[in-house]
Amino acid sequence: MKTSIITIGTEILIGQIIDTNSAWLGKKLNEQGAEVLRILSVNDDMEQMISAFEMTSQDSDLILVTGGLGPTKDDFTKKAISQFLNLEMYFDQSTYDKITDYFKKRNYPLSSMHKEQCYMPKTALLLENKLGTAPGMLFEKDACTIISMPGVPFEMKYIFNHHIVPFVKKKQTNNLYHRTIHTCGRGESMIADDIEPIIQETPDYISFAYLPSKASVRIRISGKHPNKEVLQNEIDQVTQKISKHLSSIVFGFDDTNLVKALQKIMINNGLTISTAESCTGGNIAHHITLNPGSSAYFQGSAVAYDNRIKEKVLGVNPETLKNEGAVSIATTEQMVKGCLDLFNTDIAIAVSGIAGPGGGTEEKPVGTVCISVGNRKRIESKKLLIKKDRKINIEYSTTYAFILLRKFLLGDNSINFAQN
Amino acid sequence: MKTSIITIGTEILIGQIIDTNSAWLGKKLNEQGAEVLRILSVNDDMEQMISAFEMTSQDSDLILVTGGLGPTKDDFTKKAISQFLNLEMYFDQSTYDKITDYFKKRNYPLSSMHKEQCYMPKTALLLENKLGTAPGMLFEKDACTIISMPGVPFEMKYIFNHHIVPFVKKKQTNNLYHRTIHTCGRGESMIADDIEPIIQETPDYISFAYLPSKASVRIRISGKHPNKEVLQNEIDQVTQKISKHLSSIVFGFDDTNLVKALQKIMINNGLTISTAESCTGGNIAHHITLNPGSSAYFQGSAVAYDNRIKEKVLGVNPETLKNEGAVSIATTEQMVKGCLDLFNTDIAIAVSGIAGPGGGTEEKPVGTVCISVGNRKRIESKKLLIKKDRKINIEYSTTYAFILLRKFLLGDNSINFAQN
Repeated sequence: MKTSIITIGTEILIGQIIDTNSAWLGKKLNEQGAEVLRILSVNDDMEQMISAFEMTSQDSDLILVTGGLGPTKDDFTKKAISQFLNLEMYFDQSTYDKITDYFKKRNYPLSSMHKEQCYMPKTALLLENKLGTAPGMLFEKDACTIISMPGVPFEMKYIFNHHIVPFVKKKQTNNLYHRTIHTCGRGESMIADDIEPIIQETPDYISFAYLPSKASVRIRISGKHPNKEVLQNEIDQVTQKISKHLSSIVFGFDDTNLVKALQKIMINNGLTISTAESCTGGNIAHHITLNPGSSAYFQGSAVAYDNRIKEKVLGVNPETLKNEGAVSIATTEQMVKGCLDLFNTDIAIAVSGIAGPGGGTEEKPVGTVCISVGNRKRIESKKLLIKKDRKINIEYSTTYAFILLRKFLLGDNSINFAQN
Repeated sequence: MKTSIITIGTEILIGQIIDTNSAWLGKKLNEQGAEVLRILSVNDDMEQMISAFEMTSQDSDLILVTGGLGPTKDDFTKKAISQFLNLEMYFDQSTYDKITDYFKKRNYPLSSMHKEQCYMPKTALLLENKLGTAPGMLFEKDACTIISMPGVPFEMKYIFNHHIVPFVKKKQTNNLYHRTIHTCGRGESMIADDIEPIIQETPDYISFAYLPSKASVRIRISGKHPNKEVLQNEIDQVTQKISKHLSSIVFGFDDTNLVKALQKIMINNGLTISTAESCTGGNIAHHITLNPGSSAYFQGSAVAYDNRIKEKVLGVNPETLKNEGAVSIATTEQMVKGCLDLFNTDIAIAVSGIAGPGGGTEEKPVGTVCISVGNRKRIESKKLLIKKDRKINIEYSTTYAFILLRKFLLGDNSINFAQN
């Protein structure tokens, strides 16, 4: 099922918001075996919207449209679809009753604009939206189905899961299959050279892509084949072969990330952790706690932004701060010890650096970051020079902290790394 | 200058990565007065790429292409452009010399694939890329200019800033102008009703859009006019009128956000802050420290994930935790006090909640979050029921914490809110 995704909103084209709906839809459509031909974002402009429908309806079995169904005046996707399909509008009493009820329950005043919102194109099949006031709408044009959804992410997701997934399941004939291998600690082109012989041996209907990001590279293996079982077997086998070949740089598969993979290892081995953060400002703790179940191994974090706090809360020696500086391995090693004491965990991570744009010196320029990971017996430390802007420095330092944690764990023979 | 942005990569269409390059480019092009007609993402597929060039070259003065210039095999944007423009390839020795030099300096091995990367389409104007191995390329086709850039964000940004900005400045004749008003604490449709009379009075070449997100709404005011001065005056005036009308719900303009606006107020008034976080897991501290200059008012944070840590580090009474529970205003108020003592700041923020998916009860379901903001004399507290998934709960709690901080500050007559 060939699909186009159209997202509508000038806010996307002027870069005021990042379109995350499309990525979510792309992922979910792929899980259903539907192929996404393109993602197209256009302005809140009738002409551009209609031209988007004209273009995508030529080669798509399904067009998913998000955005432009709200109550305010800048939203007119509905009118654009009606004009494209030459449909008249009617006042839908059932939608009006639902909106009235929704607002009454919440004790919100009903705006005059909500009445406008109840005009619907004739022949549209309305798709119930239990999380908001605007329903989804389904239209048929020749062999192409157009479905319009609100742009608010959780409303869009509700309509997709409840109405579109069953629709796609019924119509789908293609077989698409993807696997992803996650690696850290080796560059894209070296990995590509490494696994070239394995790639040479695989059938032509399987393709490979490298997705580098920060200090990690994902290898995506994709294929399309009429026989689902043959396709899955072949891709699973090559995934295993590559992973075996790359050995310890592989930390996981498919829908994982470094933090999730580490959480599994930590919990499987009954280990607890805490963090002491300066330049990362709580971002390491944030990434740990984004994952459900993190409370089983994460105890807490001390964000010690100010030097006095490093002394008072983490017990860093004022002499060390004076002689070596706050951004030094001597300091981060003391932060590890203070953190182990404060939170009473098995392992602690400590980071101190100059995120920028201010604070750099000739000896320690912006982007200088020290990271230590350790327990009461052993500490691994690393001094980096990242050298980009503040946000990049914070993000890279966070990723490197997790890579160093993995290295620390790999250095301990008693730890079980089995992925389950 | 009518512009199309094309981003290339199957990883975008299967939702493996979120395309942030387009949003960045959209914003920067708008700053230069160039109009973005569309953002189009297509697969690593020759046919789809060429059809994207065909479609966009019909109505665009400029096409910016990102992605597909790296050394690995899935990258073939260059070949697609050559085929579209019917250009032969040649081996570019200067690019090869640069790559060899780049790798030598870093002591990396040169891969066979890097040689492949040095074949360039004839007539392409190469745009120097000081941050990576693949240069940008500029092509002319009739009245349309096509520029191809690597997909790695900082390389793309380098080429844009150094080569494309001067190009656009030279060719630009249009005048586009946008202003944004940031509000929090009132719904989209109520705001729209409120300011309708002002909108009715503005000339037709000015348009309005509402961008709701979490507990805030941005109002974007845009226009296009041959006279730059007339356009800016008119939009600046209506921006002022709306902002005056909406009064205290407006917290800033244009490139700001709630945290940046609060940072300004805190620093202008010589106030310091610290945070005590449970369910937000460091995310409040992370958002504060993302902003340059935050060290002037932010001292640190205690992420107290475990209850024992709430007692030990923040001095929360075990009886309170037992009787009222960790997720209670009684607890967050004690966390505020403990945080003020620990970090010795003027104000502290404390959050405790059930982010989910586990941990909910009938009395306190997933999404229950308590937030307190206070100093030694006064505390503002709020209990919320957010009710969505873990990530949404963390994000909403973080935003609400900042809204509550703003409310706390507004409640103090001695604080100067002047925006400068």
